Amino acid sequence: MTGFASTDWIAVAWGEHPRAFAMTTDGQIMAEATLDSGAAPENRLEPLIGPWQAQGLAGPVVIAGMAMPALARPVPCTPLEAPVANEAGHHLVPGLRQSRPAPGLTRGAETCIAGFLDREPQFDGVVCLPGDGPGDTTLWAQLSAGEVVSFQSFLTVRLISQLLPPEDEPGWDDAAFLAAVDDARSHPERLAARLAQVEAESQLQLIGPPAARARYTGLLIGAELAAARPYWLGQQVAILAASPAADPYRHALAALAVPLRLISATEMTLAGLTRAHRLLRGQP
Amino acid sequence: MTGFASTDWIAVAWGEHPRAFAMTTDGQIMAEATLDSGAAPENRLEPLIGPWQAQGLAGPVVIAGMAMPALARPVPCTPLEAPVANEAGHHLVPGLRQSRPAPGLTRGAETCIAGFLDREPQFDGVVCLPGDGPGDTTLWAQLSAGEVVSFQSFLTVRLISQLLPPEDEPGWDDAAFLAAVDDARSHPERLAARLAQVEAESQLQLIGPPAARARYTGLLIGAELAAARPYWLGQQVAILAASPAADPYRHALAALAVPLRLISATEMTLAGLTRAHRLLRGQP
Repeated sequence: MTGFASTDWIAVAWGEHPRAFAMTTDGQIMAEATLDSGAAPENRLEPLIGPWQAQGLAGPVVIAGMAMPALARPVPCTPLEAPVANEAGHHLVPGLRQSRPAPGLTRGAETCIAGFLDREPQFDGVVCLPGDGPGDTTLWAQLSAGEVVSFQSFLTVRLISQLLPPEDEPGWDDAAFLAAVDDARSHPERLAARLAQVEAESQLQLIGPPAARARYTGLLIGAELAAARPYWLGQQVAILAASPAADPYRHALAALAVPLRLISATEMTLAGLTRAHRLLRGQP
Repeated sequence: MTGFASTDWIAVAWGEHPRAFAMTTDGQIMAEATLDSGAAPENRLEPLIGPWQAQGLAGPVVIAGMAMPALARPVPCTPLEAPVANEAGHHLVPGLRQSRPAPGLTRGAETCIAGFLDREPQFDGVVCLPGDGPGDTTLWAQLSAGEVVSFQSFLTVRLISQLLPPEDEPGWDDAAFLAAVDDARSHPERLAARLAQVEAESQLQLIGPPAARARYTGLLIGAELAAARPYWLGQQVAILAASPAADPYRHALAALAVPLRLISATEMTLAGLTRAHRLLRGQP
């Protein structure tokens, strides 16, 4: 590819599935690149954006999800401020931090939320960003008057990924999933025992991989919903999802009659990065 | 090594850390072999006992922890019956199975418990067998009148192994461990949120690896203790432990003033296998 203009720039969504976009100033995507999960060396951008730079794209690189914890801004606050340059000259979008009620740190969620609020500045409610892979957390955030009021993260997806049976017999048992969600949500103290029970029933061949997969997932999501109750009970929830990882969340919340919307996290993160690029150029 | 007698036999404790003993009929250990965790090919004994057989040890091979689920005996029952020969001519100690209150299956615990009851036939109380590695479960069993009345397994150790920070900064924060046990035991529904909080505090450098390690472990063991409450509240508990994996359990239970004894699981399993060998020879 050739023909990059001097005002072009690169948007990077760092994280479990690092993704980069070669962008024009007016927001058009010229090219896109992704790294496989696990293939991303710690904070090394070359495999992702090196080819574009070799072809002459010399504009700024704006990155979500890679900022230093020391740069994080305390909530409540707006999700986005101008990015901060690191030693390599890349511009990092600062994360959000929280001290109370529980310490927390965002790594990219703030940019996705900023993109969402750009599109829906009047939104008053909760966003849920399901974990996008084994290294990722699920984040719930309360938004009001254009600010992130509070947030809470869960290691659910990481725990699920460690328990799932191999994919040699694919499939999913929907009824088993919903029953497990309900069980763990009502009795979260039984979680570790119920997980071992799924293993025992698998070994005794009382259930197959589709039911085991659905029950492991349902138990862990049910336990999360028990702990995240203030974030969904009586709330309108927007799920900002990057992948099918969101499906179980959507399904479990729908069964609880929570008013839901499903929105592309990739699109919102790109909108947030575009906003960060404008701030970098001194534009509102 | 040479000089095996025709009455010698081999005891194998299969599991997370497969271990074999070349035994004389009168219970002396002539040689011992172990496989590294993860180095054990599925149900393949050659790396463990092949060298002894090459040197002429032709006696029976008695194995705990490898039996088919179909052979398992339903509780309540005595922990041990005569082993069953498989196609390879090895003698497998049958596991125990449970249907109610929760389906369960033992894979070696029955043999360890049999060895313990051989030594203490009058024991009336609970045994706790902490998981011995990432692939292992923790098992609690209620014993009375020489029988296993009921048991329950937990995936706790597997979950812990997935969360622990790398060992590059070793150490352990005891106070943080006990506080986490207490927190999760009182509020098990907060588990997934508390785990994410440990991660956030680590990233914000509010805590170091020793506190993170202790808190991950404490939260998961605390949640298990919440679910296993009938197994330790007002009970005398014998911990049958094979490794330092038991330390956190011992520590957490001691803080709850549970009357405890700590007994070598390896020794008890060998005693159970010796008993199984006697049964195989038609001796009581």
